[in-house]
Amino acid sequence: MPSKKHKSRPAKQPIDNERKELKYYGTAACLALWRHRPNDLIRIYIEERCIPEFSTMLQWAAAKRRAYHIVSAEDLERLTQSIHHQGVCLLAKEHSVLAFNEWLPLVRDETKPQLLVYLDGVENPHNLGAIVRTCAHFGVRYVLGMEDRLPRLSPAACRVAEGGAEDVILVYLQRPIRQFRELQNGGFELIATAAHKGAILYEHRFRPRCILMLGHEGEGINPALFQAADKILRIPGSGRIESLNVSVAFGVIAGEYYRQGSRSSHSKTTPVHRRK
Amino acid sequence: MPSKKHKSRPAKQPIDNERKELKYYGTAACLALWRHRPNDLIRIYIEERCIPEFSTMLQWAAAKRRAYHIVSAEDLERLTQSIHHQGVCLLAKEHSVLAFNEWLPLVRDETKPQLLVYLDGVENPHNLGAIVRTCAHFGVRYVLGMEDRLPRLSPAACRVAEGGAEDVILVYLQRPIRQFRELQNGGFELIATAAHKGAILYEHRFRPRCILMLGHEGEGINPALFQAADKILRIPGSGRIESLNVSVAFGVIAGEYYRQGSRSSHSKTTPVHRRK
Repeated sequence: MPSKKHKSRPAKQPIDNERKELKYYGTAACLALWRHRPNDLIRIYIEERCIPEFSTMLQWAAAKRRAYHIVSAEDLERLTQSIHHQGVCLLAKEHSVLAFNEWLPLVRDETKPQLLVYLDGVENPHNLGAIVRTCAHFGVRYVLGMEDRLPRLSPAACRVAEGGAEDVILVYLQRPIRQFRELQNGGFELIATAAHKGAILYEHRFRPRCILMLGHEGEGINPALFQAADKILRIPGSGRIESLNVSVAFGVIAGEYYRQGSRSSHSKTTPVHRRK
Repeated sequence: MPSKKHKSRPAKQPIDNERKELKYYGTAACLALWRHRPNDLIRIYIEERCIPEFSTMLQWAAAKRRAYHIVSAEDLERLTQSIHHQGVCLLAKEHSVLAFNEWLPLVRDETKPQLLVYLDGVENPHNLGAIVRTCAHFGVRYVLGMEDRLPRLSPAACRVAEGGAEDVILVYLQRPIRQFRELQNGGFELIATAAHKGAILYEHRFRPRCILMLGHEGEGINPALFQAADKILRIPGSGRIESLNVSVAFGVIAGEYYRQGSRSSHSKTTPVHRRK
């Protein structure tokens, strides 16, 4: 096993040591999983028509004595419990997650521009997957949440994230208000989003280091967390509908953060803390 | 029937005169349908628990002799073929659509800022619904496409659009390149989006009148249409994933168009051509 690959990752999993084995699917999600963490890959199920696209992975599997099975589309639908398998399924360990305290040193002592996102009740795999994909696009490395309000990335969310799930790490906070304060003391601005109140996004000047809180579309952000925010932002518009979809709203805000960063003191992307 | 409400809408439906009767569902979608086009509403199915939220609509239905039925969640799941019915279903006529030639006079002779979106192969109801919702948010009034590449708004797409479908009109082009030229001659800039080529979104100065083409996530925009573009734009990022989700990408670009408009010669929103 190429243990070097993982040297820079914290070894401890204090939240839940047991990483489940899950059945991931979708072309981009499976290719990214294999590229980023091959050691987590246990078994491959693939349709014959997909073999050319995955030939390098299958050669690797043969060399590493990982089993692979040529299966039918129906088998895959049954295995993945989805019609969106795209001809491939990987049995693999789920992503590592980090607890706040083991993660904090990774960002606290830096001064690099950094956008963090905190999700409060965004659980739908379509939204969660799209947010993670957007994180990967804009170089947002960490997605924060509480364990009972932010689910681990399911295979469905990973499929929607189109490989982006491998570029993002979930960080679980136990006491978000207190832990936000530690981040705020470290120079992070805590921003809440709202549909109908707060400053207009495009009139706000982002600090280089921000935590963006996004809430459940119906319920919004927990009031105590909302109170803790340094700033409330809203995306201006026609006012003809209640709000944007949460993953679209995140894209709009992350894009504006990126735009401001690319023309000011921020670097071109938020720093990407590489696993490899 | 309050025929006044519809006086400003073109009466002809040259593309397909027969509007189907569809079963719409979801709270926001149903409320918006009833508010925008009550005359299209045929019948109401509702769970008892949802009656308070819809009391005004139900009073209206009683006065207008529209039938309503108190049903169970299971009935609604069967009727709507969805678990996302949120306790309500409206049998109603589908949206009117416009053919290019009957629509053109509505925009050609104006000079108001206007963002149009052209969809080429975006068919997934989640993406289509989220795009329509974003259109409604940013005041984008018309969604253009070819009849075989842009499906009519299904109840699933309308549910995802959270009421936004009632603020948007689908316009079908028969010969897009030629018809784009008419729009280009009328001052519209035709913009294509791409994942890896073109100018950086944030360095582009939008003209007040634009047509934004978005393609199928896998296949992209049809090459002939792509060729016809005045400008190609890409959303810059980390380069770590292939692209953003198409509905998120649209949100990022529409947001930037809105931002530029709100601080330059554009008006605060793109004009909203009211139906009522």
